[in-house]
Amino acid sequence: MRPVQIISGELAALVGGELIGDAALPIRRIATLAQADRASVAFLANARYRSQLDASMAGCVIVAAAERERAATRPSAIVCADPYAAYAALTRWWAARARPAVEPGIHATAQIDPSAQIADSAAIGAFVVIGPGAVIGDDAFIGPHCSLGDEAGIGAGSRLAARVTLGHGCRIGARAIVHGGVVIGADGFGFAPVQGRWEKIEQLGAVVIGDDVEIGANTCIDRGAIEDTVVEDGVKIDNLVQVGHNVRIGAHSALAGCVGIAGSARIGRHCSFGGGAIVLGHIELADHVHVSAATLITRSIRESGLYSGAYPFEDNASWERNAATLRQLHAMRGRLRALEAKTT
Amino acid sequence: MRPVQIISGELAALVGGELIGDAALPIRRIATLAQADRASVAFLANARYRSQLDASMAGCVIVAAAERERAATRPSAIVCADPYAAYAALTRWWAARARPAVEPGIHATAQIDPSAQIADSAAIGAFVVIGPGAVIGDDAFIGPHCSLGDEAGIGAGSRLAARVTLGHGCRIGARAIVHGGVVIGADGFGFAPVQGRWEKIEQLGAVVIGDDVEIGANTCIDRGAIEDTVVEDGVKIDNLVQVGHNVRIGAHSALAGCVGIAGSARIGRHCSFGGGAIVLGHIELADHVHVSAATLITRSIRESGLYSGAYPFEDNASWERNAATLRQLHAMRGRLRALEAKTT
Amino acid sequence: MRPVQIISGELAALVGGELIGDAALPIRRIATLAQADRASVAFLANARYRSQLDASMAGCVIVAAAERERAATRPSAIVCADPYAAYAALTRWWAARARPAVEPGIHATAQIDPSAQIADSAAIGAFVVIGPGAVIGDDAFIGPHCSLGDEAGIGAGSRLAARVTLGHGCRIGARAIVHGGVVIGADGFGFAPVQGRWEKIEQLGAVVIGDDVEIGANTCIDRGAIEDTVVEDGVKIDNLVQVGHNVRIGAHSALAGCVGIAGSARIGRHCSFGGGAIVLGHIELADHVHVSAATLITRSIRESGLYSGAYPFEDNASWERNAATLRQLHAMRGRLRALEAKTT
Repeated sequence: MRPVQIISGELAALVGGELIGDAALPIRRIATLAQADRASVAFLANARYRSQLDASMAGCVIVAAAERERAATRPSAIVCADPYAAYAALTRWWAARARPAVEPGIHATAQIDPSAQIADSAAIGAFVVIGPGAVIGDDAFIGPHCSLGDEAGIGAGSRLAARVTLGHGCRIGARAIVHGGVVIGADGFGFAPVQGRWEKIEQLGAVVIGDDVEIGANTCIDRGAIEDTVVEDGVKIDNLVQVGHNVRIGAHSALAGCVGIAGSARIGRHCSFGGGAIVLGHIELADHVHVSAATLITRSIRESGLYSGAYPFEDNASWERNAATLRQLHAMRGRLRALEAKTT
Repeated sequence: MRPVQIISGELAALVGGELIGDAALPIRRIATLAQADRASVAFLANARYRSQLDASMAGCVIVAAAERERAATRPSAIVCADPYAAYAALTRWWAARARPAVEPGIHATAQIDPSAQIADSAAIGAFVVIGPGAVIGDDAFIGPHCSLGDEAGIGAGSRLAARVTLGHGCRIGARAIVHGGVVIGADGFGFAPVQGRWEKIEQLGAVVIGDDVEIGANTCIDRGAIEDTVVEDGVKIDNLVQVGHNVRIGAHSALAGCVGIAGSARIGRHCSFGGGAIVLGHIELADHVHVSAATLITRSIRESGLYSGAYPFEDNASWERNAATLRQLHAMRGRLRALEAKTT
Repeated sequence: MRPVQIISGELAALVGGELIGDAALPIRRIATLAQADRASVAFLANARYRSQLDASMAGCVIVAAAERERAATRPSAIVCADPYAAYAALTRWWAARARPAVEPGIHATAQIDPSAQIADSAAIGAFVVIGPGAVIGDDAFIGPHCSLGDEAGIGAGSRLAARVTLGHGCRIGARAIVHGGVVIGADGFGFAPVQGRWEKIEQLGAVVIGDDVEIGANTCIDRGAIEDTVVEDGVKIDNLVQVGHNVRIGAHSALAGCVGIAGSARIGRHCSFGGGAIVLGHIELADHVHVSAATLITRSIRESGLYSGAYPFEDNASWERNAATLRQLHAMRGRLRALEAKTT
């Protein structure tokens, strides 16, 4: 990482905020309120952490209008409509300067089929393998040990970290970020039961991923059985997520770590899934459906809203008592009814 | 993918069905009923989707005897005992023609110990590493970036996708399909607690995998502590599955994505596990035990059957009420008993 | 694996136990009690398996003082305070002899930036990529296809299996064992919602891992948003575990397979997590908190102890009845109260 420096006044202009206080304060770090020093910019996005603002040593703080007075006691402050979005924008500006620039070109060790089309501005890392007919767009970055199958496609500005697999015929749109170990386009899990054995159903579809998608480390997105598995624009997927064959994930949905979406499920737009949530196969979820962590979705949901289904944790002794009783719940309801009948 | 074409009459012969209608219709695609056109073959395996049959534009449909009359209105139809198995067989025939043939030989970049035995008909990809004493069978395919340890073994006709790890001494039988990112033979999770620290138990066993096994992307199968971890013939494992040390998975069992099988569990033959199911360590499951998605198996099961244990999801407000009350369930049972005693 | 042999008397000295019987018995295998033969050493650590001791053909058995008499009927026996710890120590001695020694040096195919510092005694495998400013300590082993980013650090004696990713600026302490496919330092899952889209928050922190840590295959540990993600000394993490950004895992904690720890959670020292457990973000767990398998931790825990929250599994028909009734539990409590009011 290279050192980055900005003065508070420029920083306010960058995030579209109003500067209060010293406009010439040099800022060399983004920090949390708790860890910040005078050369740091920090932000307060949640009023719950307001006490940290008072205690912070930050030279510059980014806050909402409601915190204007508190913030004004700092050496400098930036007041803006959405401090969290301002922080996000700042991190992008910062990272673009702190990280070494990527040099276009193809590493000498890469094995690239002569029929693949690689944009001149793309960067291809060491030990990459690219198959016949693959197409790599402008400014794309392909990390070391990636493997791209025949006729795979990577859109402009997309970045693949080390050892990403993109199977034959699978396509990723523009500006994607794909983290290490991701496998896109492995076979969907399809078998026909024949006389007690499982006979392979070859998976003849592909995976099609839209623009501005991010995919976390070691996540898997399987190719479709006949048609394609589809991830629409702006979807964000965390690490170790399983997306089965023929799933469609609607635009701008977000999937936290360890989520599993079984085959042929159709997820709406702007949905979200907490960690470890599972959606069974062939289920349809409407737009703006939000699923809590560790929840199993067993049937389609037509109405937007928040849905939950995790067992509430307790100390183990209490859990043992209650969980054992849970096995008698249906019988208890019968006993309750009988009592109600008796006492009327 | 290369273009494939077959005429409807040949297709009927291929899947062992009876042709109705035009036997000379050229078929160039396998499609779903909904997406099919006149050059497509589609299938109906589930009477639930019968209405799609009527609406389909497919030139040829594969159906069961019960659908003979409906299907006969199509340009051509194939009636057979098991349309799903016929479809599976057709996909295999199709894929064998559509996919480019693999050329035997060893890529120039592969690093292979001189003592390894590689069949002449095997194909070894770019940047593969193969250790001393490893044995690769006839017609095996080892994708790029695979790593095979000392004395590892791959049976005839097995296919490893890009970057599969097979640890030292681990063996895979014939006709396996192993998808990208799989790690076979990492150390089992074994430690002895000594004065508040965990002391490593070296894992001295290996992994032994039978014939006709398929293993999904980024799945992990650990080596045994003393004896071997065993996956029997015909087992199908989906993506992101964890199989602990000394587990034995009986023949023809199927594990969906995100399943975890803890150490020393013994799974019977013809078992199945829905996505995210977990089996605790040292548990034994009989043959033909089926476990629903997201179910935790906490004790051995001696009888075949379907077992479930997921919390039913609800809208979040309902879940909050019911889950909070669940913590009082045991106490409620006591109150119910007291009432019963009082009203008799 | 090379053959290893030791005589029973030396073995007793090695594990610090008392030898009973033949001190010159040659031992060539570590085995389970059930599989052992006269050339095997086996151990009994759990009185539950005592019957296996009587039936075992082992030439030498390692037991606790309570089993002295039973063990004395074997050709040889070793009595010690902690047979399980003795077995663990023995496996380490054994593995050090059975496994081929690693030759220091850098494989000819490795791509190493000239500014990286590699200890002379380190071993760097085939197709490894090491970035500028990285530091590899004494006796470290970097397996094939590993990728180490700019200024990454690996402590003395640490071992990375094939294809581990260590991101830029991330550091691992001494004597770590990192299994295949692990991704350390991918971006944390951070986005700001802006007008229905997710805007990237660049992750500017790193990952810092202490000494004596083991990390299982395909596990992911994300880099911090601003500060670092931290894994303290002696932590043991199994396969397919997700550790989010800015998590801190206290020393000597153990995480079983498929566990997920969401962002900014702080785990105490000497904690443990059963398979598939999930901890939500920003939660704090005290030292010595133990979480059962498949349990979702939704709020901070201040007291050490065992906590559980899995739905108890049943045969499917029983589960259907009870789970359906669970949706009425809160209403049932109301009805119970009404009855109680009526009958007093």
